[in-house]
Amino acid sequence: MLKTPSSMIPFNKPYLTGKETTYISKAVQSGKISGNGAYTHLCQLYFQKQYQFLKTLLTTSCSDALEMSAILLNIQPRDEVIVPSYTFVSTANAFVREGAKIVFCDSRSDHPGLDESILEELITPRTKAIVPVHYAGVASDMDAIMDVAARHNVAVIEDAAHAVDAYYIDRGGRRKRLGGIGDLGTFSFHETKNIIAGEGGLLIINRDSFTERAEIIWEKGTNRAAFFRGEVDKYGWVDIGSSFLPSEIVSAFLWAQLENLEKIQAKRISLWHHYNDALADWAKHQGIQLPIIPPYATVNGHMFYLVCESLEQRQQLQQHLKSKDIQAVTHYISLHSSPYFKAKHDGRELKETDRYSDCLLRLPMFYTLTETQQQYIIDALHSFN
Amino acid sequence: MLKTPSSMIPFNKPYLTGKETTYISKAVQSGKISGNGAYTHLCQLYFQKQYQFLKTLLTTSCSDALEMSAILLNIQPRDEVIVPSYTFVSTANAFVREGAKIVFCDSRSDHPGLDESILEELITPRTKAIVPVHYAGVASDMDAIMDVAARHNVAVIEDAAHAVDAYYIDRGGRRKRLGGIGDLGTFSFHETKNIIAGEGGLLIINRDSFTERAEIIWEKGTNRAAFFRGEVDKYGWVDIGSSFLPSEIVSAFLWAQLENLEKIQAKRISLWHHYNDALADWAKHQGIQLPIIPPYATVNGHMFYLVCESLEQRQQLQQHLKSKDIQAVTHYISLHSSPYFKAKHDGRELKETDRYSDCLLRLPMFYTLTETQQQYIIDALHSFN
Repeated sequence: MLKTPSSMIPFNKPYLTGKETTYISKAVQSGKISGNGAYTHLCQLYFQKQYQFLKTLLTTSCSDALEMSAILLNIQPRDEVIVPSYTFVSTANAFVREGAKIVFCDSRSDHPGLDESILEELITPRTKAIVPVHYAGVASDMDAIMDVAARHNVAVIEDAAHAVDAYYIDRGGRRKRLGGIGDLGTFSFHETKNIIAGEGGLLIINRDSFTERAEIIWEKGTNRAAFFRGEVDKYGWVDIGSSFLPSEIVSAFLWAQLENLEKIQAKRISLWHHYNDALADWAKHQGIQLPIIPPYATVNGHMFYLVCESLEQRQQLQQHLKSKDIQAVTHYISLHSSPYFKAKHDGRELKETDRYSDCLLRLPMFYTLTETQQQYIIDALHSFN
Repeated sequence: MLKTPSSMIPFNKPYLTGKETTYISKAVQSGKISGNGAYTHLCQLYFQKQYQFLKTLLTTSCSDALEMSAILLNIQPRDEVIVPSYTFVSTANAFVREGAKIVFCDSRSDHPGLDESILEELITPRTKAIVPVHYAGVASDMDAIMDVAARHNVAVIEDAAHAVDAYYIDRGGRRKRLGGIGDLGTFSFHETKNIIAGEGGLLIINRDSFTERAEIIWEKGTNRAAFFRGEVDKYGWVDIGSSFLPSEIVSAFLWAQLENLEKIQAKRISLWHHYNDALADWAKHQGIQLPIIPPYATVNGHMFYLVCESLEQRQQLQQHLKSKDIQAVTHYISLHSSPYFKAKHDGRELKETDRYSDCLLRLPMFYTLTETQQQYIIDALHSFN
């Protein structure tokens, strides 16, 4: 993160529940701190039981979980993968590493998530996967996306980096956990997320056909996990793979966070709603758009953002907040116009992507943000003219 | 690791210096636990100053450092990479991920490191890199390897996973740090290594031409590091890459270990020499080979191994030690005959590799191994008939 003077209200502040170092000490005393140990299992079981995911594997980052997805799908050079342009580089880079051609999709006009209504026209016989990003923890329209994917026999990988504890409400009114709907899904536990491990991620496997190979890829291409369960006599090199699994030090830290997930979520969601209620009139008056939550989505308190009318207005607002010692931050620069991709892009204008790139501003949002601090931020916004 | 009953002397036991959790708490209190923070810098500077490496980057594993090497060298499908067959899967898999064809090299008859005398005949116009592995922290013959590489314009990546604090003594009598001789080098901080972070690694960059791009690949393909140094105005996607950098939680842990490197090394090296002295006559009598340290190599106390006369003898010896509650463990299974590679191998017999695969046995070696325990192990070996 950007450095902030101590007087400033930072954009983010990692929250320590108090048990992290206790659990790390326990892991070390157990004599096992490499990956796939007791705390890794606890974390994975948490998501398998509480979230009812078929199978989950902790990773060193959400980027790594996305890379595992690309390997599991056997992405080959010249295969095409559809990704929103308004996202973090890893959403695209994980597939670029396997040689994929990235086809960028514009965002919705009411939300930075990908615009599912244009998906169909982006699909070609070479399309292998669609990667919706649940921006700010707000669901993409999964029924629509899964429907397009099914009709074209294309896989869906949910980039749910922001979307722990968030839901999609399907056409039948059923609440479904984000990350658990596509063929595969990924979470991030980066320090800016709701629950954290510094760097860390989770691969969510929603299809039986992927479970066995996922574990092999995760264990550096070996069948070590099956060996330690007594399923094979000796273990060796059976597939490609990498060291995707995190240290028990990281898993022990994450476990302390998971134990407090409900408490953390309650606070963050309440902060989100307070921003949303207190800023509604002001935003309307300023021509600023507050987050729009579609009827099929829920609020998980990951992020509160404003969409300004123009780049100029955003710059003025950010400067205004800075003058009051409040750190508000912009977000992604359109990937389709990045130095790496510019020349590779097919030339389509991605209007909404560029608009969010220019106009979106994120307000401070973290567990220990006090009522007084939040009121100070709201007052500072109200004083912007 | 294998599970050991509490009465057993385990093969390995991670050592906690006492400061690890203090530093982790400090990292969390600083508000910065994602990668590339204060402890990451401390660790990297340690290796740049104490080891005089040009540039180093902490990674989530040695596998990841090897993958970064493959990306830095622009390894393409059908490029050939020469790797010993007696090594961990990651030495090969990191290059397989980029599409490389692996050409396996046999081990030396006196040492599991690659046999540099046969390198030349393995080189073809497609050879892009040679990856010597400094097995057990004992140097490969780097002058010979660098000479072959230079003549054929091939890169050298030292897999120094075992070889922290180990040296190569060149033909001019100069001591050179392992990892710092090839174009690139890698360390591992896996829990079985001399200094540990559970899972973790280091990429060592020995050529100016790689430093800038390495940092970009490490930071997920972005120029974020340059941005935070004020070298560019904004940061974005400029290259392929991944999330190779570890959490500050991991770096803080590693820093506590690095502060104690000398103390740890003194103890491990003394354990090594005590095994070597106490077992010399017994080994000769049994037809068992103790480690041979070539005149150009040093002992870093990473591992003490025995090479038995036969698979049968090794099984008997391992069983004998087990009956005395001592955990001695075998090591790699030849990669060229692994399920993944068997059909891809060119059919050459790799006699020495297979011999180490069948006959090598590793004795318990860890910082807190007591004099009494070591004597007990030595006595147990002496009672083997």
